[in-house]
Amino acid sequence: MSRPLALHPDRLFPADPATRAIARDLYEPIRGLPILSPHGHTDPAWFATDAPFADPSSLLIVPDHYVFRMLYSQGVPLEALGVPTEDGSPVEGDPRRIWRSFAAHYHLFRGTPSRLWLDWVFAEVFGIDVRLEADTADLYYETIDAALKRPEFRPRALYDRFNIEAIATTETPLDPLDHHRAIRASGWHGRVLTAYRPDAVVDPDHPGFAANLARFGEVSGEDVSTYAGYLRAHERRRAFFREVGGATSTDHGHPSVFTADLPRADAEALYAKVRAGRVSPQEAELFRGQMLTEMARMSIDDGMVMQIHPGVARNHNPAVLARFGRDKGADMPIAGEFVHALKPLLDRFGNESRLTLILFTLDEDSYSRELAPLAGHYPALRLGPPWWFHDSPEGMRRFRERVTETAGFYNTVGFNDDTRAFLSIPARHDVARRIDCAWLARLVSEHRMEMDEAHEIARALAYDLAKAAYRL
Amino acid sequence: MSRPLALHPDRLFPADPATRAIARDLYEPIRGLPILSPHGHTDPAWFATDAPFADPSSLLIVPDHYVFRMLYSQGVPLEALGVPTEDGSPVEGDPRRIWRSFAAHYHLFRGTPSRLWLDWVFAEVFGIDVRLEADTADLYYETIDAALKRPEFRPRALYDRFNIEAIATTETPLDPLDHHRAIRASGWHGRVLTAYRPDAVVDPDHPGFAANLARFGEVSGEDVSTYAGYLRAHERRRAFFREVGGATSTDHGHPSVFTADLPRADAEALYAKVRAGRVSPQEAELFRGQMLTEMARMSIDDGMVMQIHPGVARNHNPAVLARFGRDKGADMPIAGEFVHALKPLLDRFGNESRLTLILFTLDEDSYSRELAPLAGHYPALRLGPPWWFHDSPEGMRRFRERVTETAGFYNTVGFNDDTRAFLSIPARHDVARRIDCAWLARLVSEHRMEMDEAHEIARALAYDLAKAAYRL
Amino acid sequence: MSRPLALHPDRLFPADPATRAIARDLYEPIRGLPILSPHGHTDPAWFATDAPFADPSSLLIVPDHYVFRMLYSQGVPLEALGVPTEDGSPVEGDPRRIWRSFAAHYHLFRGTPSRLWLDWVFAEVFGIDVRLEADTADLYYETIDAALKRPEFRPRALYDRFNIEAIATTETPLDPLDHHRAIRASGWHGRVLTAYRPDAVVDPDHPGFAANLARFGEVSGEDVSTYAGYLRAHERRRAFFREVGGATSTDHGHPSVFTADLPRADAEALYAKVRAGRVSPQEAELFRGQMLTEMARMSIDDGMVMQIHPGVARNHNPAVLARFGRDKGADMPIAGEFVHALKPLLDRFGNESRLTLILFTLDEDSYSRELAPLAGHYPALRLGPPWWFHDSPEGMRRFRERVTETAGFYNTVGFNDDTRAFLSIPARHDVARRIDCAWLARLVSEHRMEMDEAHEIARALAYDLAKAAYRL
Repeated sequence: MSRPLALHPDRLFPADPATRAIARDLYEPIRGLPILSPHGHTDPAWFATDAPFADPSSLLIVPDHYVFRMLYSQGVPLEALGVPTEDGSPVEGDPRRIWRSFAAHYHLFRGTPSRLWLDWVFAEVFGIDVRLEADTADLYYETIDAALKRPEFRPRALYDRFNIEAIATTETPLDPLDHHRAIRASGWHGRVLTAYRPDAVVDPDHPGFAANLARFGEVSGEDVSTYAGYLRAHERRRAFFREVGGATSTDHGHPSVFTADLPRADAEALYAKVRAGRVSPQEAELFRGQMLTEMARMSIDDGMVMQIHPGVARNHNPAVLARFGRDKGADMPIAGEFVHALKPLLDRFGNESRLTLILFTLDEDSYSRELAPLAGHYPALRLGPPWWFHDSPEGMRRFRERVTETAGFYNTVGFNDDTRAFLSIPARHDVARRIDCAWLARLVSEHRMEMDEAHEIARALAYDLAKAAYRL
Repeated sequence: MSRPLALHPDRLFPADPATRAIARDLYEPIRGLPILSPHGHTDPAWFATDAPFADPSSLLIVPDHYVFRMLYSQGVPLEALGVPTEDGSPVEGDPRRIWRSFAAHYHLFRGTPSRLWLDWVFAEVFGIDVRLEADTADLYYETIDAALKRPEFRPRALYDRFNIEAIATTETPLDPLDHHRAIRASGWHGRVLTAYRPDAVVDPDHPGFAANLARFGEVSGEDVSTYAGYLRAHERRRAFFREVGGATSTDHGHPSVFTADLPRADAEALYAKVRAGRVSPQEAELFRGQMLTEMARMSIDDGMVMQIHPGVARNHNPAVLARFGRDKGADMPIAGEFVHALKPLLDRFGNESRLTLILFTLDEDSYSRELAPLAGHYPALRLGPPWWFHDSPEGMRRFRERVTETAGFYNTVGFNDDTRAFLSIPARHDVARRIDCAWLARLVSEHRMEMDEAHEIARALAYDLAKAAYRL
Repeated sequence: MSRPLALHPDRLFPADPATRAIARDLYEPIRGLPILSPHGHTDPAWFATDAPFADPSSLLIVPDHYVFRMLYSQGVPLEALGVPTEDGSPVEGDPRRIWRSFAAHYHLFRGTPSRLWLDWVFAEVFGIDVRLEADTADLYYETIDAALKRPEFRPRALYDRFNIEAIATTETPLDPLDHHRAIRASGWHGRVLTAYRPDAVVDPDHPGFAANLARFGEVSGEDVSTYAGYLRAHERRRAFFREVGGATSTDHGHPSVFTADLPRADAEALYAKVRAGRVSPQEAELFRGQMLTEMARMSIDDGMVMQIHPGVARNHNPAVLARFGRDKGADMPIAGEFVHALKPLLDRFGNESRLTLILFTLDEDSYSRELAPLAGHYPALRLGPPWWFHDSPEGMRRFRERVTETAGFYNTVGFNDDTRAFLSIPARHDVARRIDCAWLARLVSEHRMEMDEAHEIARALAYDLAKAAYRL
């Protein structure tokens, strides 16, 4: 009595038959292009060790905040989903029972991108052809569990099967990059890059900042007791990330895009306070802002592409933070401002074509009001794809509708999956390719663009722009 | 020479034929579902006395701020529309002349939801088949006036004809609920509930606050000279609203969703200032914020669903306020912030599944940026339907497009008509049902949802979610 | 091997065949209506002297910030595009080479309104039938250059060919209006109006403000050392603009719509500080706000329509400003607030039907949240069309979708081209007419409006509303 699961070949294309036919024509030549994943959060250990994934729940549920936040919002305790506690107090440990809880609530994901991604994983990766619901929970569990034990479901095999050309992970400057080193040493052909994400040693409000700073001095071999040394430590670790981890980019997860360009003496004095742990919230923001400008300077020198992911009130729920720790689906977007906040950095480096600064936002209002006008003027600026909550069909549609007319296509950088959910990566790229083709098909069907141009742009959005922007 | 008025059976459905056919299929089984109206502003006296409505203008124009604000914006004096003055100075008193002014300007409503609602009332309630314009004003007036004198156009008969299962009114804690008592005493089968809206005794900026507070002590039988007594007075009146008026919900019309969770001593000291009438604007906001948290606490105890309708600069036009009083179409939405403002309340009660806190907004920008992420995490939060200016086809479409991908459907609560325009209630619910079916039809036609799921959600949005969320 | 350039007759109409047919029917009777251009920035000297345009590049590239900002954002130096420098240091002076740079980057405009406008100019004005790209650059250059030498491509001939009924330019109060005087003296039938834009003598932050103020006294013949004299100077120059330049409107390009209504003594004291050049940023804002209210008062007296174009951080890029001067594509929109900011002015004059105050914004979020509710209540307010970055198909669609349901159509004022790119004016009006017809066609196809009403509104949006609102 279970219901079929079938991915329709025309999914996400517009309903109008003529426009749909155009979308199909645009999609066909790009559907099989290799995947470039220039920003994300997969675990390099997977590719280093190539160990099999443990079980369906620890692969697909326990680590996926998109999934457990929705269940939690409807009253399912995180304990029942096996999310580990900070104090080690027990949670559900039977992956099959976790899977059943998930299956019984799968209807909550109707209309969400998680449903699209998961159904793709079930159908395409595991060959399941019935819908997930309470009645099919065990069938699913057993099918997936059995598959994960087979060699073709190990990380490296999936990397090939997914036709990935390059994938970036994200590490802190304190990371020794042992997994990346191991991947290279293994002789495996896969291209796994790291990215330099220095928040832990840049943000004075970061938990453990003082200890991080001390460790930063150790791993870099620089004396971080002075600002000059601290900056050199960044330069050294950036070089290390490039050499050992193949990094082509940095990433900055700040509360805002506030930037500063202080006189050297002021920056040094501020750093002294930061190091001493005696900064006000305003000074912490000032230091983060100063460091964005310093990072831009370093990027011009060393060629690393710079990304900013701003505007999140992280760990909004103190009870969840205390019991389950960070990154548990309680991060909330806040309104952002770009025009004034970025000015100090742009005054200094905005006209530099050697710099590529990719801006992301969770505040869609800034797309047409601030981001597209900025990116449509400054040579150094590009716009990242719709991020996180907006990595979705409607989110992508809004992005193109609001950005294109002012910034065009060539000031955007293609798609980022930005995920730790490895198995969903092809689904995410496929959604982006389909939605971009749907948008282009609308332009063509409304005679706002010619078909040959739409083909060229479809390919650029799926592959070329990411390759160029991220210097892959 | 008059032009026909005909409601098309496919109105509000998408133009694409295949998508329209899906929308029709989804709508058919839900079009006749009973109406749950869990939040609104009809007058309980109508149902208590079942007196006939007086005349077309005093029923459909004089009390409807959607209607007279539009005429006023184009230079029609409120006096000409019979809107009564505060000082009793004369206004147009002939309802037929008022009706003629309205008819002569009916073209102003093209493209607005008022036009959809009014045309439905004219065609479906009164059986009129020509369009309203200057030439048909008298025909309209006479047809409606004659109908209102017949028993089947009295409030209780219309309640049945409209297939209403339950309807909520809104009263202040000072209301003796005599009409609700009379409805129950009458033995009539209709289900008319009150809702507890304490702004008049919670908001220090409310006109007449001091007198309201004194009266609050009297009606509750509590000593409101202390904070403890004041809180008990709320608890007593909430119980009274449940017992006598069948209330299942409270409602809070604050300038913002700012919340606070003060230490008891601070709250007591603040209340003493509030009572003494010596609060700054910041302290007034603090007190309102503290009371939202207190109300959440009481809701957990007594099971009443909590609604917040924030973000309106009320009575923006001082000349209109002075001459015609409050609620005269001069309320203006302002930008709102939710993530920081709700944190004190959510820190304390956000993880409580026993609490249902329904958030509304007039700031659509918060849909995807703040509200959907919050509701997609906190068990206590749900999102109310598009409100007031956004209770419209495009407003509803934007709501689903921006909310669904992050919060899903099940963190929303179905439709509210939120109106005092009793005759338009079925039209308003019908618009919502049609637009939700149109949205679901798009998801189905784009292969983002299966038909059986869309049917289930269509029913949930039209009936089940409101019943569950409002505990009806 | 070049690719064809052909403007499709159905361009910008919806893809759904039935809706497209409706759009066509709506567009047909309005496509040929005369052009009213009630706000813009063409040079009155063109119409006064009727001299031929110099060459393709200095006509279409060098002065068009839409064009050169996009090229600059992708690394093309402004020097290569012939943009003149402030210090006179040399830039590319060969218009054919400038044209080639432009042609080689024409793909950057895919999906932008500039592409729509330019293709229209190429095809309709110059009769070119191949696409602009590197290979056709010289063909384009020669075709356009040859045409510009012919009498039918002079400004007055194009005015007639474009079927312009009236066109407004924009001048400062210091302008002697010699060109406008010359146009009238010439006996030519064209109707070229000026508009009174007093920012240079109202905004204390304007470069050269003190000198401007002194000159303002001279040209007005008033003693501007007192506030009374300063206000009289405005009244005198407004009268001059009406008499000599046919002005029917004023325009105000303020950083925000902040308004003030100070007691006379305070205003006088503030003006004294302003005149002395001793104002803080807050006082400068206060003075600008006071002047908006004074201008509204004058408008009630003299019947001039008032426009506000707020919310731009101008000359955001200091390097570009220093080297190339103002208006070089580096102006950035910022978020705006209307409900509180306009209150002082509206408290005083909002209920005046004699005043028409037309509001523009670059912050689309305010459309449904603030602007439509304000315009749907206050008799004095109207909403200007989507402006600048939003003068585009998607921008116009968002405007109608977000504004109509609350403000209707009749609180909007038709289209403004707002451009100095004279040759693109018909294309801009045509895009607006097509998009408005597309929007109306959707309403008709979804049975939200009858066809006879849509025809009436299509004509109103294309012609009648501008004529009435701008008193043309």
